Parts: sequence; structure tokens; C-alpha cells
Amino acid sequence: MKLKHLVGQRFKERPADCVIDSHALMVRGGYMKYVGNGIFSEFPVLRRVTSKIEAIIREEMNAIEGQEVLFPVVMPAELWEESGRYQSIGSELVRFSDRNRSKLVLGMTHEEAAVHLVREFGQSYQQYPFMIYQIQRKFRDEARPRAGMIRVREFTMKDAYSFHTSQEDLEQYYKKCYDAYNKIFKRAGVPEVITVASDSGMMGGSLSHEYMLLNEVGEDSIVLCTECNYRANMEAADNLVENVAKNDKTELCCIETPDCKTIEDVCAFLKSDVESSCKAVVYQKNIDDAFVVAFVRGDYEVNETKLRNFIGEELHPAEITEDSPIVAGYIGPYGISDQVTFVLDTSLKGIDNLVAGANKEGYHYTGLNLERDLCNVTYVDIAKVKENGICPCCKKPALTIKRGIEVGNIFQLGTKYTESMNMQYVDKEGVQHYPIMGCYGIGVGRLAASVCEAKHDEYGPIWPISIAPWEVHICCIRPDDEETKQVADALYEELLRNKVEVIYDDRDGIRGGQMFADADLIGVPVRVVVSPRNLKEGKVEISTRDKSVSMMADVAEAGTRIRELIERLYAEINQ
Amino acid sequence: MKLKHLVGQRFKERPADCVIDSHALMVRGGYMKYVGNGIFSEFPVLRRVTSKIEAIIREEMNAIEGQEVLFPVVMPAELWEESGRYQSIGSELVRFSDRNRSKLVLGMTHEEAAVHLVREFGQSYQQYPFMIYQIQRKFRDEARPRAGMIRVREFTMKDAYSFHTSQEDLEQYYKKCYDAYNKIFKRAGVPEVITVASDSGMMGGSLSHEYMLLNEVGEDSIVLCTECNYRANMEAADNLVENVAKNDKTELCCIETPDCKTIEDVCAFLKSDVESSCKAVVYQKNIDDAFVVAFVRGDYEVNETKLRNFIGEELHPAEITEDSPIVAGYIGPYGISDQVTFVLDTSLKGIDNLVAGANKEGYHYTGLNLERDLCNVTYVDIAKVKENGICPCCKKPALTIKRGIEVGNIFQLGTKYTESMNMQYVDKEGVQHYPIMGCYGIGVGRLAASVCEAKHDEYGPIWPISIAPWEVHICCIRPDDEETKQVADALYEELLRNKVEVIYDDRDGIRGGQMFADADLIGVPVRVVVSPRNLKEGKVEISTRDKSVSMMADVAEAGTRIRELIERLYAEINQ
Repeated sequence: MKLKHLVGQRFKERPADCVIDSHALMVRGGYMKYVGNGIFSEFPVLRRVTSKIEAIIREEMNAIEGQEVLFPVVMPAELWEESGRYQSIGSELVRFSDRNRSKLVLGMTHEEAAVHLVREFGQSYQQYPFMIYQIQRKFRDEARPRAGMIRVREFTMKDAYSFHTSQEDLEQYYKKCYDAYNKIFKRAGVPEVITVASDSGMMGGSLSHEYMLLNEVGEDSIVLCTECNYRANMEAADNLVENVAKNDKTELCCIETPDCKTIEDVCAFLKSDVESSCKAVVYQKNIDDAFVVAFVRGDYEVNETKLRNFIGEELHPAEITEDSPIVAGYIGPYGISDQVTFVLDTSLKGIDNLVAGANKEGYHYTGLNLERDLCNVTYVDIAKVKENGICPCCKKPALTIKRGIEVGNIFQLGTKYTESMNMQYVDKEGVQHYPIMGCYGIGVGRLAASVCEAKHDEYGPIWPISIAPWEVHICCIRPDDEETKQVADALYEELLRNKVEVIYDDRDGIRGGQMFADADLIGVPVRVVVSPRNLKEGKVEISTRDKSVSMMADVAEAGTRIRELIERLYAEINQ
Repeated sequence: MKLKHLVGQRFKERPADCVIDSHALMVRGGYMKYVGNGIFSEFPVLRRVTSKIEAIIREEMNAIEGQEVLFPVVMPAELWEESGRYQSIGSELVRFSDRNRSKLVLGMTHEEAAVHLVREFGQSYQQYPFMIYQIQRKFRDEARPRAGMIRVREFTMKDAYSFHTSQEDLEQYYKKCYDAYNKIFKRAGVPEVITVASDSGMMGGSLSHEYMLLNEVGEDSIVLCTECNYRANMEAADNLVENVAKNDKTELCCIETPDCKTIEDVCAFLKSDVESSCKAVVYQKNIDDAFVVAFVRGDYEVNETKLRNFIGEELHPAEITEDSPIVAGYIGPYGISDQVTFVLDTSLKGIDNLVAGANKEGYHYTGLNLERDLCNVTYVDIAKVKENGICPCCKKPALTIKRGIEVGNIFQLGTKYTESMNMQYVDKEGVQHYPIMGCYGIGVGRLAASVCEAKHDEYGPIWPISIAPWEVHICCIRPDDEETKQVADALYEELLRNKVEVIYDDRDGIRGGQMFADADLIGVPVRVVVSPRNLKEGKVEISTRDKSVSMMADVAEAGTRIRELIERLYAEINQ
């Protein structure tokens, strides 16, 4: 198509409200428009990118026997009451009523709808295994939408659900899907996406993986081992700590520590090291505001996901008042109120002579030896891994932490939904069982934005050809020059005849610099410049957006050269 | 794919809750599943049909320079407040709040979102004209969802919006879109879809057309002229009435008519004919419950759409109480309370000596001559056309009324949205104007269901090949017979290699009758039966779902014959 007809305007200034580059470039390049908090419209350029991503996902899902279906965006609350998620999910789930006061929800995932659809179909073991998927809009009322299309409230997602009669069969299929996902990311131009073990959170189930594009703007922390293949989301990463015994346990001693409300204050005041101190982080259960105190070694942070999984309840940071059974700044495990649940992290194991709060304004204990001074001490892994931490796999102190954007996830769901929604099948012997499920998601818009974040320069996105809005961008410099216009027009027509996707800039009165800036923002991989200067030598200029290729071609051969280059770019992606 | 893996079960019994055939067949055939009132999931068979419809729509929209975009399903209320529709639309518009108590709506159409998207882009006349469209889910809280996918609450819709700098330009584009729509319906296998002039209702604007598939299950009444090309939706059809003057005006006379509360009672009692009587139908304005009385000739019915358009307010049938300024059963235009707005239909023009209520319990007037007895009489067209009514076009009494399903609509919107949302462009002379809009919709699921309703027999849908879930359905009768299975397998593989879409039924232990019943429900246009009996003569049977073709082909030539048949079926549609 001709650029002059393309809907969406481009501009030079970086919008003030865009924190990350991909967001800024996609706003500046006429890809997306803000409609409301975490809600965007897609201009044609972005819609072309997302359509191509959808097509790749479809092909790969069909290749592993996926069958495309469509679930509704709006569902009756009863369906979510069956699984229990109507109650268990917080305000991310939008709940509302229709004209007849019937309760409805907006789909944020579709496990319930999937089970509902196949509950009758899947009554005999002979139907298994099968996988259904959809590409559909979803709404999740995120508290903090951010980073443009990376974290939004409304999004297009491919969600797939597989059903199996044995764990082995699920695992076999899970592996297939694992590989299909790697293919999808490779085909989308980001083969560097890695998989990490993840926490399965509210989805239920046990084993799960996330596909992460390592990038400093990512909101996930990824734990990687530099010595072996261990990779995990920080939320799920085991934290191993080895404390060396000092072999001289001192007496428990309550000491006045005026105005020492932080670990640092106390350590400075008592001249002890932070590795011998016990830090308290206080939460409350969402359900009844009961207090939960997490104790970790002074130099560690609490991993709230692990803590929540251990407690088995949703938690929030505590609000401590004068009536609370807790003395802010002086909380310790010894002598703590029995109204409070407390958890000791494994990082506290084997520390002699801890410094800890005395649960009394202005006092701390020294010489606290947990196993000596408390009853029935058990340690739970509730702390975050630190840089140079011990790898749970190869046991070397080789862990490193990177940021990543989650571009996909796969879960082994088990029977959480089939049991709660009473979906059963009859096996060969006539015995009833709950089928075992897997589920598999990819956010389409987030993937587009992530690729942009991973592949861009200061002038715009550098789209991989497989998901680029067009394959070729022709700039006709000086379309008022008759020969130049003729050559550019002819090349445009020739490429179209050969089914090449071309965006053609033949705008009058636009300088070359502006044309190139626009082309950079649209980020098409192959650029062709037709100008009077090049034509003097009978040439047109062909280059790639990433600058790896730049050549002059004879006018007569330009079409062929361009098509060869396109083929090469596809081959590089698919190699 | 193999039928044994297809997700979705088929069954024989017509579900009791299905009123129309297409709904019953699509439930029995494993196309759709009820999720909630007016909310359905699509099984793979239907998703294949809707995907093909979407692809046809996309191609035709792109062919008229449409650019695909994507608007959100969920929009902030402010956007709809700008256009005024947040207030003006009734409970079909779902309104709810998010976690921050921000007001949101679910998109039922996207005029606001379209204007919002291009408001900055469209600031110069040089950008015009342009058209953007999307294929997206929508939710409309219908009071009475019915007829399966025909009238639902959640649906996939293609909605397009064009922007112009002059009415002429809009009309030119409108004509293009008008033709593109005819192509879409032709390509979807229903060339018999007709266009009718329609009422533009809450969309605003003036000229509009609906695309109607004439069918007795349709909920729209279509007025057609048997003598000329006039076609209109009943809501919009002009009603012409010619009353012959009697030339002997009698005196106005108030007569006691005890227990005569209906037109029929009064006419019988007074021995007058119904064509000389004046019928009253009473409404109230939604806004303040003020009474509006519509008077029509005794044998006509009120067209509420025309009445509402004339009054300019939403109306509802009146609730008349003892306090009302109205005497139920005895309402007439002469002497009616001045608290009441009344409208005289054109069918009353030229009637001498009307019988009409006297606005007094138990009394009617005879000899009422409106233009003699009332002041400033004007007549307004507010009645429904009747069978054999006068055509507004050729003036012959040749109107007939049919039922139709609306499968698409196109509107000339004018500047309703650009004015209210203050979208302006600067013309060549630097003067600001509001662009003129058109909008164009097609419901994807409704079109699928309508085609099914128009093309089916008692055994299942008869899908046109262009939107059929597959092109060929192979039934392997007796797959336990080695040769039969080999021939069927080979044919399946050959067709797949040639990019033919095949559903292959090689289920063990299923009788031919069951296979054929399943094939009928899936409705694939070309059926191939491979059976031991035919193979004895070296043949396979090839037929079409609509029974127009039935032939035996040599095994070696079967693949070729099938592909020729497929080509012919496509050619028939595209001819």
C-alpha cells in the first residue's frame, strides 16, 4: 500500500508518559493509541504485526493437533462459581450484572469455559487426548498497567487447553507444546527466549514453565546459573543458604537498643554483622487480617510468592496500629505474641547467637539460638535468591539474576478444574476418572511489544521479517522527477505482482530525511531507495533496517535482488 | 483431519429449546454450546466456518482500501459520554466499574473508538478519504436473545468506519461498500440477500441500508414491491393511503356507545365500516411519561419506529390509570385533553364522517371531519404498510410483506459523531470542518447461522463450499477391511497433498448409516464413500451434500474427479 494512505500519524518527540522504548516507539510510529488505563486501540501497522503473530501461533498450534474454538469474553458467574474462582480471585476479575441482575464476569483466562465446552464430549476415554485453543480478547483488571502493550488490562491471548487420561500422556503433550512454543518464538524472530521453571500461582496445578525474553525492562526476575542449565523465575527459585557454625553459643540476653528500628541501626549499635541478625517482615491474611511474620536473615528479602504458597492464603503487607499484637521495629521470634503466625526462613538455620527483636519497644535480644531457645523449630524456604547464591541444581555459588519479560507460559494443571467442575470420563473398564489438564498461553500484543523492545534502535523498531508489517519499504525520493517516479512505480508493481508485501512512500514534497525517519519507525526489514542521484548510475539502493546489508542494484535487477534478500531473511529466521 | 479426533459431539434428537432449524442443527452437529443467556462457545466445526467468513470479509474490505485496526472491547465511559451515547442508550449498553471505581462500558459498536483513534490523524483534508475496520467481539445486552446464533448478546462483528470531506465522497464510497457487501454475501453462498432501505435508529445519520436474507424465521418485516424494485424495512417503509371522498359530510354528533371499547365493537354497534373509523394507540415518553396518542385509520397499525422518529423521543406503551388525562376505549382527536400530544396518521386524510372516541366514557363521535372540526390539521406517516399497499415508488397497489434476517447494514452517519466528539480537519483554504462518516457492519456468527437457516435439509446444514468447515468428507465404510482402508487412506493423503481440506471418517465399528448421519450434520459439500461393495467394481462414490451430483469414479481417478468437482463448486459460487 501507499504510505500516504496509511492511517496513523508518526512524530518525532518521545511522549513524556512512555517509560520504555518499545512503548515510546510504538506511540511515535502510529502503532497504538491510549484509550484508557491499560486499554489501547491498534492502528493498522500494529494490527498487521499482531495478525502475523496470530498466524504463526495458529500454524504451530494446528501442527500439534490443536483445534481452534472460541469462548465468550463475557461469562455467567455460575461458571466461575463451579471452579471456585469467582470467590478466590481478587479484583483482577471484573464482576458485573446484566439488565436482569444476572451476575457476569469478563474472561481473564478460560479454563472454566474449556471444561464446560468439552464436559459431554470427553465422557469416554476414547476421545482422549485432545487440545482446544482460541485466540480471543481478555480483560484482567490489573492494579498497575504499565509499559505500553507489555502490561495492559485488555489483551489478545492465545490460550490452549489439553485433556489427558494419564499424567504420562499430559507430560508427553506438554513436551510437544514446550517445543511448539520455542518454534513460535523462533519464528517470531526472538529465538533467544528462554524457559524458566515458574510458580503456578492461582492457576492451580504443579509443574509450569514461563517463556522469558531477557530484557532489562522486564518486570520478572529470573534466576540463572552460570555453571549449569538451572533457570527459574525468582518467584519459584529455591534459595539455598549455608551458615557456618561459630561453636560458641552465648546466653540469650535482652538489651536496650533505643531508636534502633532497622536492621542497620541495630547492627551498628550492637557492632554485630547483618548476617547474624534476624529480620522481620509483617503481613496480614486477606481473609481475616490475621498477622503473619516472616523472619529471614538480615541480608535476605522475603519471597512473597513462596510465603503465600506456604501459608496457603492471600496476604498483604501489614498495617500495624497501636492495637496490633506486634511491636513495630522490635519484632523477633522469641516471645512473640501467640496471636501471630510466624515463619522462619531457611537462611536462619545454623546461625549462632542471632540478634532479633525482643517484642518490646526499644529492646532486642542477642545470643538467640533458635533451636535452643524456641520449641519445634522448622525452617521454610521463603526468601529470595541473591546474586552469587547457591544453585539448587549444581550446588555451586553461581546464581545470577536477570530481568525478563514473560511472553508465554505453560502449566500442568492436573485435575483442579475437572474435579471442581465434575468433568469425568469412563475408562476401558467402566471406571470413572477426572481428566488431567494442561494449559498454554501466549499474549499476542505483549509478544509484539517484547520483540520491539528486544529489536530496536533509537530510530524505531527493527522487525523480524516474519512479523514485520510489510516486507519491503520503497522510498521514492523526489517523486516529482518523472524518471524516478516511473522506476519506483514499476518496482512497486513488480513486487506486488510477485506477492511481496510492500509499503510505498511516494509522498510529494517530503524530504529524504523525513522519509527515512518514517521508514525507521515502521521498521520494515528491507528498504529500497529510488532517487535521481542513484538513477544517474542506473542503480537503486537496497538495504536492511538492521544495516547488515547495503547494496546498489541495477534497476533491471532490483526486483530479483529484493526477492532474494527477502528469502534470505526468512531463511535466517527459520534456519 | 480425522473425524474421530474432532472435538464436539453429534446427536440425533432435536433439542427442545431450539425454535428454529439452524439452531437445532448447529447444536445437534456439535457447532455451538450454550454458556449463558445469549452467550455461546464455538466448537471447532463452527470456528472453521466463522474463520472462512472472516477471511472473505477481510478480503473484500481490503479490496475497497479498508485498513484493519483493533478497538478494545472494554472502553472508558468518558469516551461514550463525549458522543452522548453513554446517556442515550438504554440497558443494551453494559455499564460497570473497575477496581478504582472508574466507569467502563462494553463495546456494542465502535463509532466513538473509531473517531478517537483517527482524531489526530484526520486533521488535514489531505488524509481523506479513509476507511478503518475491525473484526472484534461485541456485547449487547439484548432483552430477548433468541434463535441460537441469530440474536445473541455476545458476537463477533466486522465493523467499518469511513471518513470523508464531502457528502458526494461519502456517497461514492458508500456505493463501493454497498457492492462489496453484495460480493461478500455472494461469496458466502447467499447471493439471494437483498438490500432494503432502513431506519437508521440510534446510530444517527440519514440514509442506510440493510442486507436481508428473506426467510420466514427472520424477525424483520420487509416491504417489497412486486411491480418495481422498491424494498424497505417495515420500520422505514412509507405508507401511502388514498381515501375516496364521499361528498356528503354529515354533522358532528356525540353518540352513546355503551360497552364499545374496541374498533370492532363500535363499528358493529354503529353499523359503520372500519375504514371510516379512527383508532387510537397510546404511548408515553420515556423521559417524563407524558402521553402521546397515535391516531390511525381503524384497519392500520402504528409503526412505532416512524412515530418515535417523528416525536424525537423514546416511547413506551402507555399505562393508563384513573388519573390519566385519557379515557381508555373512548379516545378521539376531537376534544382530547391538551395535556396530551397527538399525531394524525396520513391514513386518516380525506376520510369523511369519521367515527372516533369522544374522550368521555361510553361515547363516540360520528360525522367527524378532521379538517373541518379541528384546527391546523397536519398528517404524519406513522402507520405500517399493509399487504397490497401502494408502492411509494411506482404507485401501484403492489406491496407485499416478507420476513427477513438482517445479515448486514450500512449507514451514512453524517457528522453526528465527529461533531459531538469534536473531530475536525482543515481544508485547502485553512477552514475547519467536521468530517462526514459512514459505518458498515456484518455479524459473523449471525451470517453463519443465516446461511445454515437458508441452506439445510432435515438432516443438517448444506454449507456452500466457500464457508464449509471442510471441502471433502471421506467416509470409509468398513475400515476393518484392509483394501477399503488402504484406498481411503491413500485418497485422504492424496487430497491433503493437493491442499484439499478433508475430514476423514475412518472410525471403527460405526455403521454406514451413522457415518452418513454425521456427515449430513457436518454438511461438507463433497462426500466420498469408500466401501468394499464399490471397490469390488474398482469404484468410489462421489456426491454432493445437496444431492445435485452423484457419480461413481475409478479409484485411480477419484482424486482428480474430486478436485474437478471442488473447482466447479467454487466456480458456481463465484460466477
